[in-house]
Amino acid sequence: MASKTSERWLDEQEVVAGNGLLHRRMFLSGGAALATALSGYALSDSADAAPLPIEPWMKTPTTEGFSPYGQTSKYESKVLRGEPNKGPGIAGGVGSIRTPLHLINGTVTPSGLHFVRLHSGVPDIDPDKHKLLIHGLVERPLIFTLETLAKYPMESRIYFVECGGNSGALYARDPAKAGVHRIHGLLSCSDWTGVRVSTLLDEAGVKPNAKWILAEGADAAGMARSVPLSKIMDDALIALYQNGERLRPENGYPMRLLLPGYQGNTNVKYLRRIKLTEGPSQTRDETSRYSITKTDGKTIQFYLQYDAKSVITQPVPELKLQGPGLYKISGLAWSGRGRGMIRKVEVSADGGKSWAEAAIQSQILPKALVRFQLPWRWDGRPAVLQSRATDDTGYVQWTRDAMIAERGVAGNFMCNCITSWAVDEKGEVSHVYA
Amino acid sequence: MASKTSERWLDEQEVVAGNGLLHRRMFLSGGAALATALSGYALSDSADAAPLPIEPWMKTPTTEGFSPYGQTSKYESKVLRGEPNKGPGIAGGVGSIRTPLHLINGTVTPSGLHFVRLHSGVPDIDPDKHKLLIHGLVERPLIFTLETLAKYPMESRIYFVECGGNSGALYARDPAKAGVHRIHGLLSCSDWTGVRVSTLLDEAGVKPNAKWILAEGADAAGMARSVPLSKIMDDALIALYQNGERLRPENGYPMRLLLPGYQGNTNVKYLRRIKLTEGPSQTRDETSRYSITKTDGKTIQFYLQYDAKSVITQPVPELKLQGPGLYKISGLAWSGRGRGMIRKVEVSADGGKSWAEAAIQSQILPKALVRFQLPWRWDGRPAVLQSRATDDTGYVQWTRDAMIAERGVAGNFMCNCITSWAVDEKGEVSHVYA
Repeated sequence: MASKTSERWLDEQEVVAGNGLLHRRMFLSGGAALATALSGYALSDSADAAPLPIEPWMKTPTTEGFSPYGQTSKYESKVLRGEPNKGPGIAGGVGSIRTPLHLINGTVTPSGLHFVRLHSGVPDIDPDKHKLLIHGLVERPLIFTLETLAKYPMESRIYFVECGGNSGALYARDPAKAGVHRIHGLLSCSDWTGVRVSTLLDEAGVKPNAKWILAEGADAAGMARSVPLSKIMDDALIALYQNGERLRPENGYPMRLLLPGYQGNTNVKYLRRIKLTEGPSQTRDETSRYSITKTDGKTIQFYLQYDAKSVITQPVPELKLQGPGLYKISGLAWSGRGRGMIRKVEVSADGGKSWAEAAIQSQILPKALVRFQLPWRWDGRPAVLQSRATDDTGYVQWTRDAMIAERGVAGNFMCNCITSWAVDEKGEVSHVYA
Repeated sequence: MASKTSERWLDEQEVVAGNGLLHRRMFLSGGAALATALSGYALSDSADAAPLPIEPWMKTPTTEGFSPYGQTSKYESKVLRGEPNKGPGIAGGVGSIRTPLHLINGTVTPSGLHFVRLHSGVPDIDPDKHKLLIHGLVERPLIFTLETLAKYPMESRIYFVECGGNSGALYARDPAKAGVHRIHGLLSCSDWTGVRVSTLLDEAGVKPNAKWILAEGADAAGMARSVPLSKIMDDALIALYQNGERLRPENGYPMRLLLPGYQGNTNVKYLRRIKLTEGPSQTRDETSRYSITKTDGKTIQFYLQYDAKSVITQPVPELKLQGPGLYKISGLAWSGRGRGMIRKVEVSADGGKSWAEAAIQSQILPKALVRFQLPWRWDGRPAVLQSRATDDTGYVQWTRDAMIAERGVAGNFMCNCITSWAVDEKGEVSHVYA
């Protein structure tokens, strides 16, 4: 992969953790040697004049590109959510389809690739007929239409949404024979715009004994969840726009609840009703599901806020290494705790024995995905790659062993433990427990 | 629009500028009275139980929503870039198509609605054959493929891109009979991810006499622009991803130059070549076009950095007011100066005689679009709405009169003056000079 010169240079670099992790400064400061190791290929000086061929697309103008709504390049037709995971439910409307984390980049997930989890398919809601009811323990029950909500002050924020069942495979006794897409792809991040729920509740008038809400969707499943009122008053939105345009149908069109940093399923889609209550309503989706069932038979209910989490998205089982040399390890980190700010991300290449701090690639925004990256000199021998995130509350992402010790292997939901990717001598990557 | 109660409440609100502009605190603090004035409709208490009808979509599950790449709702089929403005050039490949600013919200522009300006249509570039050459005044000319660039450290940032010709209508002697889409829609904002150009130039080795670069695209027009090397070394990217996925074809696939806060045309799409030079190359698109031609016959060349700018996107000619009452004035602000941070946005309803500070709806990020909003009590009489932005350098968006005095009516490019929207007694909105 690298030339003799760059190999020598690589050998001289400061290894800051086991199995060849290099200091992040190499990525932050750039420099000639880094680039040579990576590397563009040098031309002889005499080739300077016009060494690139004139390709056919440079010779003929086209009339393409003026469509009223643009689409992706035909060369990117494999960048897809992939095959859905269909559940055992009725009529095929139960299931999920995942964001291909290994094929995208940046902070925002393209709306067409946002993960989807549906309980009865997408309802075909006429936006002009859809209404939102606020009732229960309020002074004045109220109804809102889309037209009315448009008059209210809006808030725009970039927030991640993660399904409560994401990464659930890590609760299983054996590592999943799957890649990052399948294991962790129920995770996306968007620019959400909507009306603060607290603004609407101020109008309705919250009665003193109201402590929870019930949020219900207008899908055929009648998806409904209970959420503490304190969270609703803190930062909850009635989201109307996703990445600048109206919500996508599979993400809740025409409106959804958006609870920054909370379990995905509580961000109720197709939102039609918010009822203020004294306590949780104990719906099907917070009793039989979306709760953490421990091995002692007890259940952790309403564990809704995501703790700090991260995952390496490159290299992963979908992306094989091409022989020893300098590689970029990169991935995503996020947290729903506190202000939801990622403070640092560390990477290990020796299964957690030693750690090196990663460079941050993106802006760090509250309760949004953060990209990290770190240079790694792979010597061609087996290695186990891990990442762990620390947020601004000081919380450090825990190991799988610690999570299983506390929750057991039937936990299923709200998994935020460290993921281990094993690299073998051939450069193949697989999911392991380490 | 408003009930008798809310009218009384509205009358008691603090007017902070002429023609009924209200204090932004009303939007920041919410409260019952605001909401009532806006307003959801109240039910009688007895109607609390189940006042919403069970709509057909709640009765039958569907199998929709599991497509590998999602699309917008069929109910949003009118949210489009509209009809292209085709230029007089060859084969129809010259022209533009615009972002419908009045129909979208948030910080990020949906990629399918990003504005497009093409000089010879979209070239059908095979990404596996596309190469980027760095040459000229460098120690080592270098060639990069997409595969090579993927190994480099990346940077992800949210930046606006604005065509140099955007808002050019405001240089004309008479106000345009057009709306915000047509006048200002060559403006978008995306989450861009790519490799710092400075990293690649460090590898190539910049010779001391290099002060400018020439960037050239692989389209049939051979679009090429000169940019000061200082800008390139500061924050320029070779952008590979737009809102998480590979660039859209009409926005530069597979790679473009991204110069935060700089004239759109210098963000060369389909980038194939960066040549380091002593001075500007004086290409067609920086001599005959994309320069500011003053009335005295002199030309301001290489005025590339956007000064602070804002525009009201609601109300606008496309969105009529429905009678007197409380309205939300909202819009966009941005700046390419200094750190590119918007410090404040002010709104006037009396053609600039008095101003009120707006509330900020979105996160303020460097060289990104910022949303503002302000409550306005329209009394049904004629009004002239304006907005003006101030950035962190202290620069205040100038009036059209000031801009015309300095540049004349043939200026055409880099227009950043205040836009005036007149509201008549019927609630119709039109573009005026005031």
